[in-house]
Amino acid sequence: MATLLQCTPFYHSIPPSLLPILNLSLSLSSSFLLLLALSLSLTSTIGFSEGANFLHSEILKDEAVVRLNELGKVSDAQEFLARTFQSPASVRAGNLIRLWMEDAGLQTWVDQMGNVHGRYEGLNPSEKALLIGSHLVLNISGMLGKLRRPVEVIAFSDEEGVRFQSTFLGSAAIAGVLPVSTLNVHDKSGVTVQGALRENSIEITEENLLQLKYDPDSVWGYVEVHIEQGPVLETVGLPLGLVKGIAGQTRLRVTVKGSQGHAGTVPMTMRQDPMAAAAELIVLLESLCKQPEDYLSYDGQCTASTVQSLAGSLVCTVGEISTWPSASNVIPGQVTFTVDVRAMDDLGREAIIYELSNRMYRICDKRSVLCLIERKHDANAVVCDPGLSSQLKSATYAALKRISGEDLDDVPILMSGAGHDAMAMSHLTKVAMLFVRCRGGVSHSPAEHVSDNDVWAAGMAVLAFLETLT
Amino acid sequence: MATLLQCTPFYHSIPPSLLPILNLSLSLSSSFLLLLALSLSLTSTIGFSEGANFLHSEILKDEAVVRLNELGKVSDAQEFLARTFQSPASVRAGNLIRLWMEDAGLQTWVDQMGNVHGRYEGLNPSEKALLIGSHLVLNISGMLGKLRRPVEVIAFSDEEGVRFQSTFLGSAAIAGVLPVSTLNVHDKSGVTVQGALRENSIEITEENLLQLKYDPDSVWGYVEVHIEQGPVLETVGLPLGLVKGIAGQTRLRVTVKGSQGHAGTVPMTMRQDPMAAAAELIVLLESLCKQPEDYLSYDGQCTASTVQSLAGSLVCTVGEISTWPSASNVIPGQVTFTVDVRAMDDLGREAIIYELSNRMYRICDKRSVLCLIERKHDANAVVCDPGLSSQLKSATYAALKRISGEDLDDVPILMSGAGHDAMAMSHLTKVAMLFVRCRGGVSHSPAEHVSDNDVWAAGMAVLAFLETLT
Repeated sequence: MATLLQCTPFYHSIPPSLLPILNLSLSLSSSFLLLLALSLSLTSTIGFSEGANFLHSEILKDEAVVRLNELGKVSDAQEFLARTFQSPASVRAGNLIRLWMEDAGLQTWVDQMGNVHGRYEGLNPSEKALLIGSHLVLNISGMLGKLRRPVEVIAFSDEEGVRFQSTFLGSAAIAGVLPVSTLNVHDKSGVTVQGALRENSIEITEENLLQLKYDPDSVWGYVEVHIEQGPVLETVGLPLGLVKGIAGQTRLRVTVKGSQGHAGTVPMTMRQDPMAAAAELIVLLESLCKQPEDYLSYDGQCTASTVQSLAGSLVCTVGEISTWPSASNVIPGQVTFTVDVRAMDDLGREAIIYELSNRMYRICDKRSVLCLIERKHDANAVVCDPGLSSQLKSATYAALKRISGEDLDDVPILMSGAGHDAMAMSHLTKVAMLFVRCRGGVSHSPAEHVSDNDVWAAGMAVLAFLETLT
Repeated sequence: MATLLQCTPFYHSIPPSLLPILNLSLSLSSSFLLLLALSLSLTSTIGFSEGANFLHSEILKDEAVVRLNELGKVSDAQEFLARTFQSPASVRAGNLIRLWMEDAGLQTWVDQMGNVHGRYEGLNPSEKALLIGSHLVLNISGMLGKLRRPVEVIAFSDEEGVRFQSTFLGSAAIAGVLPVSTLNVHDKSGVTVQGALRENSIEITEENLLQLKYDPDSVWGYVEVHIEQGPVLETVGLPLGLVKGIAGQTRLRVTVKGSQGHAGTVPMTMRQDPMAAAAELIVLLESLCKQPEDYLSYDGQCTASTVQSLAGSLVCTVGEISTWPSASNVIPGQVTFTVDVRAMDDLGREAIIYELSNRMYRICDKRSVLCLIERKHDANAVVCDPGLSSQLKSATYAALKRISGEDLDDVPILMSGAGHDAMAMSHLTKVAMLFVRCRGGVSHSPAEHVSDNDVWAAGMAVLAFLETLT
């Protein structure tokens, strides 16, 4: 018996009329724990290397979906799936996962950050362990006894960070990069992280928190399966892709101040309109990020490889914009918008921010409006471990080939524009990630969907990877 | 004695920290009655034509400012000037104005829409009357006895329409163009127009409302003085300008629907980003409205004169914009923004809307986003009466020349991009309007300002105009 439960985005189908409620929940208070269960239930060993037994592959597929749906029903809300950090549904889901882990013969525990752990020591308990996340439940019978090193699956207690505006609470604690001050961060109702845990009878102190950090010498590596949350795999027509790294990120807030006026009385030529200026800035941003090679000079700012890397990975987004005073018949006095820039190449990202800022300020000067570009957040890129990634890629290729029965093109290699627990875990150990195709590339939305077949493919790939540890 | 009180925008100086409060008030509940008092207090006749007596011109100037400040203190709010339709401060201000009217020897009354009237019959009470608005108080001694026709000043009860989202309540009633259903329109707290009047012991029925309409045969014309609310007069360096007409207006709501996605995971080339599309549409709008001659074809859509008129009067504004779901790390699924288009030439405005819509849809097609352009409001332009305007212009020229003591360039002729009570009154009688320079062209803002000297110039111009009626 082998069961894998990977927590990644999952939604029930939600009628369009409920979208505003969902949005409210997303933005205000709910962490969608977003569970995707990969349930590998095997009564005997599946060996890719030694002649596979596919008798149970349909069971494997069906059970994954059944468990997925079962977990999907555990929600704080009636109409959609919502589980915030330490919410009642979050605790119930954790208990369910822990039960499944124990059924599978794993040793389980919940740590002081609410992470649910399931571990099997394998043949050599003193060996460095493979950790699997971000909210993954492994249940392997038959294969467990042959594992050459311990395998531990951790259902991290919070990846999304909606309740406390702080991502990776669980994984950062285990990687030892969560500041102790995080315990005193409070949600919108004034409950602290510490308080939320206490409500579920988990006592955490600053000392406890520091002790949650794993000894790097006890860990061999970290593997995470996640839905792509983007459209690339769908476009290339493959269910799985290897992640080469997680993009670095810069968040800007751009404020454009012009001259507020009556929409009817200020001639076009005499306007200092921050909305028209903001529109030009956003058009520039899109153009620059679509074709950075047209904007960056090779000699000064970047090497050719940096520009090439940017051209493949750079993404820029304006997600929020607001005008003041926001009336249809008033030329705004001020417009504020956010800019989210991500790229695999940190130097390249810096070059883009530099070039973008310069060009933005030039446009603002030309239009006689004042621009303020504030840097609100920066995170460097994380590069996945080449060796571990290569191993995961080979296993993925073998699984895909076995499923399709045909020779395949190489497994595609993607960058992850979204942050994942692997970002935190990279501070502790080498990491590798596998992406699963999702419909339309849509994520964090009720339209998010992964097909049963792709769930199955991901499960088979992870199983093939685990076999390399036997 | 002659006293003129013209209600146009007026603000006390407000510290920047209060701006958000002010904005709340503007957008939610308060009608800034915005009073500018032109107080012409003369103990004897001032004749421009027969050798002026300027002994009292300083008194005239000072008293205008004193009354302005006195009215400016009557406010529903502590920190800024706010008077909604039939609010306590609005009623107190009306009473004060009525008192001043009576001191000046006018016959006064308040009608069932709360308009405050002051009338002097002059030498020929059966003659058609000159009406002066929009919230104007006239107090003329010395000259009153010589008026060849009745003069009636009406402080219209509501021009801004903030409380009931319905402009020109007072003037539309008198012009006979206010739908009776307006009485049942309610504010955000559920109080109807009828209820608001009843709270101040004014009973209005549908029948009363219809009876408020003036007999067109009893009215000779309507003259209104208003601040420009734009920067043109400041730019040409003159305190006064004649209004040739009030622009027609179209309000659109543009909705752009794209594909919502994670800001980090959708490559630039695979996006259907409604925010980037909206930015391109707004840049197009600005470009088209700055140089309509580059976009419109002379033969098909417009005559040369239409295009020329557009080039001089067309203004386009995006005052509101919003994204959904509005998170910095989410490519929006939808962006909505408003478009306000105004022009003196109605056909030209139609041509612009047609051209704009076509080009917007083409951009949306190119970007594979869905665009919906809804027409929310239309109002045709109002052309001021050439004869009455000419008379007002001559009087204005004489007043300016007298004040400066020099030969002047001609009085500038402007269009009004903002709506005024004159729009409603044009349904009843011929109208003419005079604009007063305001600082920076800023209006509906705490920074709005008219200099004492310009208030004085406007008063002198109106007085000179009234003299033509003696």
